[in-house]
Formats: sequence, C-alpha cells, structure tokens
Amino acid sequence: MDSRRAESFSDGVFAVAITILVFNLLPVGAGTVSSRQLTNALSTAWPQYAAYAVSFLTIGIMWLNHHTMLAHVSRVYRPLLALNLFLLMGIVAIPFPTALVAEHLTGKFQAGGPVAAVVYGLVMIAISVGYSGMWLYLESHRDRLGASARMRSARAASIRFSAGLAGYVAATLLAAFVSAAAALTLYGVIAVYYLFDQLPDATGADAGTADAGTPGAHASGAGAGPAGQG
Amino acid sequence: MDSRRAESFSDGVFAVAITILVFNLLPVGAGTVSSRQLTNALSTAWPQYAAYAVSFLTIGIMWLNHHTMLAHVSRVYRPLLALNLFLLMGIVAIPFPTALVAEHLTGKFQAGGPVAAVVYGLVMIAISVGYSGMWLYLESHRDRLGASARMRSARAASIRFSAGLAGYVAATLLAAFVSAAAALTLYGVIAVYYLFDQLPDATGADAGTADAGTPGAHASGAGAGPAGQG
Amino acid sequence: MDSRRAESFSDGVFAVAITILVFNLLPVGAGTVSSRQLTNALSTAWPQYAAYAVSFLTIGIMWLNHHTMLAHVSRVYRPLLALNLFLLMGIVAIPFPTALVAEHLTGKFQAGGPVAAVVYGLVMIAISVGYSGMWLYLESHRDRLGASARMRSARAASIRFSAGLAGYVAATLLAAFVSAAAALTLYGVIAVYYLFDQLPDATGADAGTADAGTPGAHASGAGAGPAGQG
Amino acid sequence: MDSRRAESFSDGVFAVAITILVFNLLPVGAGTVSSRQLTNALSTAWPQYAAYAVSFLTIGIMWLNHHTMLAHVSRVYRPLLALNLFLLMGIVAIPFPTALVAEHLTGKFQAGGPVAAVVYGLVMIAISVGYSGMWLYLESHRDRLGASARMRSARAASIRFSAGLAGYVAATLLAAFVSAAAALTLYGVIAVYYLFDQLPDATGADAGTADAGTPGAHASGAGAGPAGQG
Repeated sequence: MDSRRAESFSDGVFAVAITILVFNLLPVGAGTVSSRQLTNALSTAWPQYAAYAVSFLTIGIMWLNHHTMLAHVSRVYRPLLALNLFLLMGIVAIPFPTALVAEHLTGKFQAGGPVAAVVYGLVMIAISVGYSGMWLYLESHRDRLGASARMRSARAASIRFSAGLAGYVAATLLAAFVSAAAALTLYGVIAVYYLFDQLPDATGADAGTADAGTPGAHASGAGAGPAGQG
Repeated sequence: MDSRRAESFSDGVFAVAITILVFNLLPVGAGTVSSRQLTNALSTAWPQYAAYAVSFLTIGIMWLNHHTMLAHVSRVYRPLLALNLFLLMGIVAIPFPTALVAEHLTGKFQAGGPVAAVVYGLVMIAISVGYSGMWLYLESHRDRLGASARMRSARAASIRFSAGLAGYVAATLLAAFVSAAAALTLYGVIAVYYLFDQLPDATGADAGTADAGTPGAHASGAGAGPAGQG
Repeated sequence: MDSRRAESFSDGVFAVAITILVFNLLPVGAGTVSSRQLTNALSTAWPQYAAYAVSFLTIGIMWLNHHTMLAHVSRVYRPLLALNLFLLMGIVAIPFPTALVAEHLTGKFQAGGPVAAVVYGLVMIAISVGYSGMWLYLESHRDRLGASARMRSARAASIRFSAGLAGYVAATLLAAFVSAAAALTLYGVIAVYYLFDQLPDATGADAGTADAGTPGAHASGAGAGPAGQG
Repeated sequence: MDSRRAESFSDGVFAVAITILVFNLLPVGAGTVSSRQLTNALSTAWPQYAAYAVSFLTIGIMWLNHHTMLAHVSRVYRPLLALNLFLLMGIVAIPFPTALVAEHLTGKFQAGGPVAAVVYGLVMIAISVGYSGMWLYLESHRDRLGASARMRSARAASIRFSAGLAGYVAATLLAAFVSAAAALTLYGVIAVYYLFDQLPDATGADAGTADAGTPGAHASGAGAGPAGQG
C-alpha cells in the first residue's frame, strides 16, 4: 500500500480525536440560573480547560511526529499497518483519561485526582511505547519500506523518544505520590517541549512536492525560530 | 513539511468542528408528549438555531481564510505548525461558547446570557489574534516559506483582519453592557461580511493545479458577484 | 481556489455528518435488566433504525450529487463557496430532524410524529433549494468556473432536481395530513430513487486522472446497471 | 467517478466511525467520590475496554480490506457506489452493538449479554455479506472498472472472506447458546487474524505512486513479518 493512503486515514483519525476533546468543555455551565452562578461555574471549571489544552497539544504533537515518521517511507505493509492501528487505538483513547482528569482535579470528586492522573500517564506511556516500537520497526526495515537516506539520524530520534517516555513515567509517578495538578502540568510541559523539538525531517523523501523550491538550502532549518531570518 | 499535509489535517479539524455544532440542536423536543408541545419546544428553541447558524458560518469563513492564508506558502516548519495548532485549539473550542449562548439567550437561564455572549466574544478575539499572529509570521518569513509574489498585498489583508478583531471586541462589549441577542447578531454580521470579502488570493501559487486554465485572466476576479458575468 | 480543496473540505463534512447518525441508535437498550427486556427494547426501536437508514442513504446520495456537481468545474470563487457553505449548513443539520423523527414515530411521544416528519421535510426542501441554486449558479457561470462541455446536459439535471424537490414537498404534505410513517417511507423511496438515477457525469473534466484508461468509451455508461455488462 | 474520490470519502467515514468508539469509554468513573471508588469503577469497566479494542481492530481491518479492494479498480459507477454506501451503513453502525455489549457483559445488566452479543454478530454478518457482494461485483465487472490483472487471485480472496463470514456466524451462535464473553473473544480473534492475513495486493494498479521504487520485487511480500528482512 502507498504510505500516503495510510497517512491520510491516520490524519483523519487524529483530526477527529483532537476535535472531540471539546466535549470535555460542553457540560460546563449547564443548568445555572443567575449570571453570577454561570461566572462561578465557568471559573471553577479551569481543570477542564487545562485538560483540554494539554491533551490538544499532546495529540497535535503526536500528529506531527506521526507524519514525520511516515514521511520517511514510501510503502507500507501489513505489519507496519498493524503497529499503526495499535498506536491509533491509544491516541483515540486520549479523550477518556482527559475527561477523567478534568472531572477529578478539583471539586467534590477531587479524591480521585491521583488515580485519574495515573490513568492519563499510563495511556501516554502506552502510546510512547507504540511510537518507539514503530520507529524501531521502520529503522530495521528501511530498505524494504523505501526509506529515505535521512533516516540515518534516526538514532538521535530514538533517544529523544525515550526521553519523552521517561518524562511520562516521571509524571505518572508524580501523579501517584505527589499531586494530580503537578502531573498535569508536567504532561503539558512535555507537549510544549516536543512542539518545538522535532524528529529528523524527511523533506527530501516527501515525494510529490515537485514545487518544493530549494529543499537543499532550507530543508534542515526547521529548528530555527523567527529570529533565524535575516 | 509540505504545506498541503498541514492543510489537509487542518481541513479535517475544521470539518469535524463545524459538523459537531449539530449537537447544539439535538436536545430540542426531547420528552414532549403532544404535537402542540413539540411545536412549542421547536419554536422557542430559536436561540439554538441562531447560535448554530452564526457559528457554522463563522467556522466556514475561518476555514476559507485559513486555506487562503496557507495557499501562499509551499513549505511549513515547526514554528508555523505550532502557531497553527494554537489557532486550531481556539477553533475546536467554538462549539463550547456556542452551546453556552444557545442555552442562555432565552428561557429560565436567560440571566446568564451576557456572560455567555462575552465568553463567545473572548474565544473569537483569541482566534482573531491567532490569525493575525500567523499572518504576521507568514509575512516576515515569506522567502523561507516559499511564499508567492501576491503576498505583497498582505498589508491590506492585515488591516482587514484588524477590522474583524475590532468587530469582535465591539460585539463583546455589546454583550457585556447591552444585550446578548444584539451581540449574537453582530457575530453573525461579521461572519456574513467576511463571507463575501476576502484575503488576497494565491491562485498563482496554488501548485499542482496544472489544469487551471487561464489563471492570469480570472485569478483576481474573486470579488465579483454573479452580476460580474456578461 | 482550486475546486478540489473545496470538495475535500465538503467531503469531510459529509463524512462526519453521515457517521454521527449512529448517535440516534446508541440510547437503545440502556438500563434494561433482563434478556427479554433488551430484546423488546431493541425491537420496539425500529423507528430509530428506519430513520438511521433513510438519513444515511439521503446524505450518501447528497454526497454523490455534490461531487458530481463540483466535478464540472475546476475553479471556485467566493460566491460559489458561500452557496456551498449554506448547503452544508443544511446537510449538517440532518441528524437533528432524524433524531426528532426517530423519537416521535412510535411510543409515548407518538403524538409529535407529524410535526417531527414535517420538520424533516422542511430541512430536505431547504437542501433541495440549495442544490438547485448552486446548480443554476454553476450553469450561468460555466465559462468563468472552467466548466466542462458536458454541462450542456445540465438542463435535464435541473429538471430531475426539481422532481426531487417536488417529492420532498409531497412527503412533507403527507407528514402533515396523513402519517409520519408514510412520510418517512417516501423520504426513503426518494433516496433510493436518486441512488440509481444520476446527474450528468463529468468524467472527462475530472482533471488529474491521467490513468483513467479509456474514458471516451465508458465515461457515459454510468446509468447502466450490472446487467449492462455483456 | 474516479475511484480515489470514493475512497477518500470512505476513508473519512471509517476514520470518524473508529474514533467515536471512544464514547464507549467516557462514562466510566463519573460520579465517584473516593480514590478507591474510582479505582473500582475503572477496573470493573473492563468489558468497555474489551469492546473498544475488539471494535477498533475490527473497523481498522475493515478499512484495510476496503482499501485493498478499491485499489483494484480505477473507475467507479453508481451500482458500486450504492453497494459501498450500504457497506458503510453497516460499518458506521458498529459503535451501536459495541455499546450494547460493553453495557451488558457484566454487572447488573448482565442478563442481556447474550442478546447484545448476538446483535453484534448480526451486524458483523451483514457487513461480511456486504463485502462479499462488493467483491463479487468487482470480479464480474473487472473490465469496465479498469481492474488490475492481479485481481485474478480474487477467487482465493473470496474463499478467505467466506471464512470470515463463517467465523462471525460461529461467534453469533456462541453468543446465543454459550456465553457473551466467549463470543466477544472470538470477535477479537477474527479481527487479529485478518490483521495479519490479507487480500491480494493491487500495488501495481495503485496509480499515482510514480515514486514507488521497485514494486515488482517487493509488492507481494506483504505477508512477511519482521523476520523476513535479512
């Protein structure tokens, strides 16, 4: 199968999963009568907004990394598609621990906060393991999958992925033994970190972009911020 | 990353966000026994239809502008993708203030109307700021992003965007000090205004449309209405 | 804007709208204790299955016709995109009257059936008018939109569209004065009729399918059923 | 119509259907006060996780097979699109029996388990019949649809499809006469089996992948696992 087909299906799954996070926000403010009550309901619901933002960025980063990873190959086969399906199964589940954390971070269900944040962490750890597995598979089958030469820098990527995994393990321990709010903060920090860091780019392997201009000169400049332009 | 990939993911997010607005309509009429009761329930639910229509047009226009903006570039990098993710986070949240406004515009929860309409406005202001930021980023990195020559007209676009921002600020003040219904009306007017106005077109930069016929002659005619045809 | 971009966004909206119809089925069987109770709940819920099937086919046919229509043009402009947005606003709303009909066709809320089926019909009529409007717009701007020569057969299509509109008007009257079940049946018959009928094909204009084989010989054979193969 | 258009719409439907399975998980843990209660609620909810995983893999495999099937053709016509729509109607319905099974496998609604698992099986049987029908249609119209030469191996595929159908019939009987949990296990086993088995590949017919490298050498190697690489 052409790898673009698998990417397109995965993109759709990511897009739906990230969008239904909004259902975490919807119940806020239902059944309030006065203006003051609604303002109160909206301001005490900050765990919902925080959980929404953290999970939104997390799924967004996962989409970016998923794309970066698949951009290295031009063909996919059943074993890779199966790995991809298990990975997506974890990503689609994210709204579930997000809702748990949103509900249990404050208020009368607060006692469940640590358990909720641990479940959140376990889902993230499972997804990280899935990514590492898929990355290792790609690396060890690079010829057959029509992988790009740039994938040589994959070792560095693996290390960075392991760092992400370690971060999620740390946040899960934080949830279990310290505080759910601290854990959620760390989940957010990991997402923002990965937003600006990145896997090795595969622009040269990105078939079909005949109009890509001068890939050689610019392709590896992704790390440069706005200040990088003279 | 090829900019088309980012567009395709964003398109998916826009499509899901605009479609789940229908959940604002669904509870209407549940649990009514007689034909007259159902008719009453359906006609007193007009704030739900109004909020649905305004948010639908708003997300639709945002999709159009998002596409017009990204059509100017052929490559995207992490900082732009991060900006895009923050923008989408605002757009995906739109069903939330929509539900708030729909519930609080009339009926027994009416007292919360101004607060609901202010929250709606704040989300719109945040999204407008996100668009302006992304547009400024595109303008200041136009070489590196492979931007089209037409982007020179971007200054005019920035001004028009600021106008949109000003409109949302005005509507939010209207919500806070005058009436939620007046504010919702203004939100709708802004959406309809942007539906017929538009950003500078990038048809010439729209790589891949080899079959585009005579782009030179027609490309800039987008502002002409049906009457523009002899 | 390239017409494919607009199609792709519209496809996403159609795909989400058709899929969330399943939420009409979900509440069935909740809270039943015995095996017999569940069987009863599932079999008395047939209006939900019927409404699901009719609306699924209806949205599916609308997707087909939408694609057939846009395949005639290669460029789209703001007025057409605005018309398209209004059309999608009607299509996205379909799960709402579907839920109304499913809930009111039988059981203790049965008295609301005619009202529910009339609302269903009004949404269908609005969508039919939207299609006719878009088709007329396409016809009168065929040069500017890069339309295909095949669009000359559009007059026949307009007539067939009017037939659909007449069918929905008839079904709505049936709902108001005879029975909701009869109206739902007619809505289903219209969908099945359009499933096998079709608009003039634009295969020749379908740019980008360089691999289309022998379009000349086969392109207009779309109306032939399985028996059409020797 | 170009077959890629139909694939893209179907992909969207599959992506949404697979993602909304997460709504089966969401109610877990709502309204629990203590940490222990939440842990209990989460661990007794295993039927929800099991039903989620089985249905996720099932829809994922169905997407793979759907793509493999449509990759054989380059043009689609109304009868095939109609068959495809009926197939999608079954697939979109999957979250419904999934929710039934999740709710009735254990706990106080347990008595309904067999009925729920039978309904699950009936939906799967309907979908299998739909696939077989579509496959037979493709086989008997292979010239008109621009089918690839590889489709000659279709007979083997039909046999394998019948095996899947037989598996679903067996699982449904198991649900009716033995146990709902045993049936759910068998549904899962069938999904995992198809995950590694596959239909005849149509890589050679996959128009547009000019960059596919050496399709001849690798195209039929999809069955080889990771160990297949020297």
